[in-house]
Amino acid sequence: MTKGRNLWVRNIRPLGGEITDILILDGEIAETCTDVPETTEVLNGAGAIALPGLINAHCHLDKTRWGLPWEPHAAGPTRDERIAADREMRRGLMASTKERAAALAGHCAALGTSHIRTHVDVEPEFGLLAIEALLELSDEIADRVSIELVAFPQFGLVTNPGTAALMEAAIKLGASLLGGIDPSSIDHDRAGQLDAIFDMAERTGAGIDIHLHETAEEGAASLDMICAHTKALGMAGRVTVSHGFCLGTVDEKRLAGLINAMADAGVGVVSYAPGDSPVPPVKRLVEAGVAVGVGTDGIRDAWTPYGNGDMLERAMMLAYRSGFRRDEDIELALNAVIAGGAALMGLENHGLAPGCAGDMVLVNAETLADAVTARPSRKAVIKGGVNLMAASCL
Amino acid sequence: MTKGRNLWVRNIRPLGGEITDILILDGEIAETCTDVPETTEVLNGAGAIALPGLINAHCHLDKTRWGLPWEPHAAGPTRDERIAADREMRRGLMASTKERAAALAGHCAALGTSHIRTHVDVEPEFGLLAIEALLELSDEIADRVSIELVAFPQFGLVTNPGTAALMEAAIKLGASLLGGIDPSSIDHDRAGQLDAIFDMAERTGAGIDIHLHETAEEGAASLDMICAHTKALGMAGRVTVSHGFCLGTVDEKRLAGLINAMADAGVGVVSYAPGDSPVPPVKRLVEAGVAVGVGTDGIRDAWTPYGNGDMLERAMMLAYRSGFRRDEDIELALNAVIAGGAALMGLENHGLAPGCAGDMVLVNAETLADAVTARPSRKAVIKGGVNLMAASCL
Repeated sequence: MTKGRNLWVRNIRPLGGEITDILILDGEIAETCTDVPETTEVLNGAGAIALPGLINAHCHLDKTRWGLPWEPHAAGPTRDERIAADREMRRGLMASTKERAAALAGHCAALGTSHIRTHVDVEPEFGLLAIEALLELSDEIADRVSIELVAFPQFGLVTNPGTAALMEAAIKLGASLLGGIDPSSIDHDRAGQLDAIFDMAERTGAGIDIHLHETAEEGAASLDMICAHTKALGMAGRVTVSHGFCLGTVDEKRLAGLINAMADAGVGVVSYAPGDSPVPPVKRLVEAGVAVGVGTDGIRDAWTPYGNGDMLERAMMLAYRSGFRRDEDIELALNAVIAGGAALMGLENHGLAPGCAGDMVLVNAETLADAVTARPSRKAVIKGGVNLMAASCL
Repeated sequence: MTKGRNLWVRNIRPLGGEITDILILDGEIAETCTDVPETTEVLNGAGAIALPGLINAHCHLDKTRWGLPWEPHAAGPTRDERIAADREMRRGLMASTKERAAALAGHCAALGTSHIRTHVDVEPEFGLLAIEALLELSDEIADRVSIELVAFPQFGLVTNPGTAALMEAAIKLGASLLGGIDPSSIDHDRAGQLDAIFDMAERTGAGIDIHLHETAEEGAASLDMICAHTKALGMAGRVTVSHGFCLGTVDEKRLAGLINAMADAGVGVVSYAPGDSPVPPVKRLVEAGVAVGVGTDGIRDAWTPYGNGDMLERAMMLAYRSGFRRDEDIELALNAVIAGGAALMGLENHGLAPGCAGDMVLVNAETLADAVTARPSRKAVIKGGVNLMAASCL
């Protein structure tokens, strides 16, 4: 990783507050702006709002066709048909994984994404090819965006022999988290899949992030078990449920119980603000103390033709889908791409306070809600004290 | 209205088809490109996709705060609280109606919107002030965007004495359509409001566009009555239902009946692709022969902080909310901002065929679905044969 540089960011409004300066020294936000080294580069924000680096807490960089010619969506309308189309597409594109992922990650970085958690398929047919490609990319692109890997059993775990061993191998190679997917409806063995994942987490020290498309009681029962396992292993703050459609499809009483269980166990949730699937009740979750992040999910891949990698747009979409209109509610959605994502990813030095990493996005907007609804072009994107939009970085 | 000019638009792909040229003569698309007058300006599309002018079939230009400082959303979560907040805001802003509407309409024009149907509040307290402002604007801005007015009883018709007379006066002044709103839940007199509107339409020759937020059976009963009145008066093709939330909230049997009734009567529907309200089943409606348009609804006003006036983004949102992933489905959503809107607005010369108005948008995209999902910046916006993005127009 390139060592962070010094940057004196002047005339900015941190999180929409009063105008001030922030000094980044050696890639980290300094206590004060009193001792500015002579050679420090100066960036005049001219009153722009400064946001911490934006966090994409759920992506599939290995699946994207970003940069490739348009390909009409080929899958049928079910999850299983999409998985099949994905597998077929990947057969032809496995060799270009690093290149495709790099194109998308670089694009996301330019839009102010400082951190990406990407789920990377791990499966006997493809082995660890995608994991290896993404680990290489993570290393090479670290001065623009930090990438964290989830070893993801897209094609099943219990029902796909060899997958568990590959997941464990992926963690040894450098992936940070173990993935999972719909233990009841994919593997038809809720306890089997979840036991395997949590056992592996205990052995390896990895975190966990489980795709849960399951709706209603099927998903709720899976979520219950995830919370119970998390609590039993004392993994608070290190387990995420992605999508969590069930949180939008159970009745009030069940929902309250699930939210309590998540808060109690320290299980977070990531939504991509889907258009035609249920969105978890963001405000209630946040008020209960559950960490809520936002991801893009897949971008232009076999699953979906949508997506542009803009996390301000994802915050807008989460707010729009949640019916948020008041500033404080829209700020909740924005917070999900900042502090919410940071909590899920365990980033202790994320933010605009002294000691935090020098990751920052400047946008021309009046208020935070204005920044979310308007999604203005990025005036500057700073990673580790380097302005990525400076001429020398383009 | 400024008379259209001549423009030779070269190397474009009309609606994503084969590369070709289109000649606009005196603001109208010519039969062929064989007799190009010597002084004709040339615009090289360099392979861009050409779309007809985009149609915003439901807007509230008079309500917008576009161009004003950010104002946090003040209304409570119900329709009636939003109406109250709107009335309060309007009291302070009535004098700047034309200026505010002009700022937003100009912005929409720059994004390729060639036609806007705007609902304009008509109410005893404010009289015809907003109608007069919008009629003036419509005239002054016609060389950039065509604006059609609906005389809209936002605050009730039957329950707001004097409103009906003002609506009829608005039509005499130049508004094209009579509006309506939730006859059962706003006026508590379904037949009373609808009878009044259709009687007025018969007397004045105006079209009709009725806001229908009412859900489930309440909305379905209103929609039934609108279809029956439309059929009785032979107003096929001249009646629109806006929002039509009920189409997303009734059971299958009721839905099928409503769609049949709409197709039979010639009643169209406009959605703004809401984030947290039901979206009508676009594909079924289109397949049944119902005209489906898309609007922005209000943009940055007392009702909502969202919106940027981009009709490609509205098409994306309609597709995203409808779960459309296949190209042909995404094209349905795009068609709603083109031919669907044109059908609702009775624009017979809209499109890219010879004889059509020289309204066109150029975007760099591979396919139509690519144009919708990516919403690229506009490479050129042509209105009546004039490139609005030419240096002389900026």
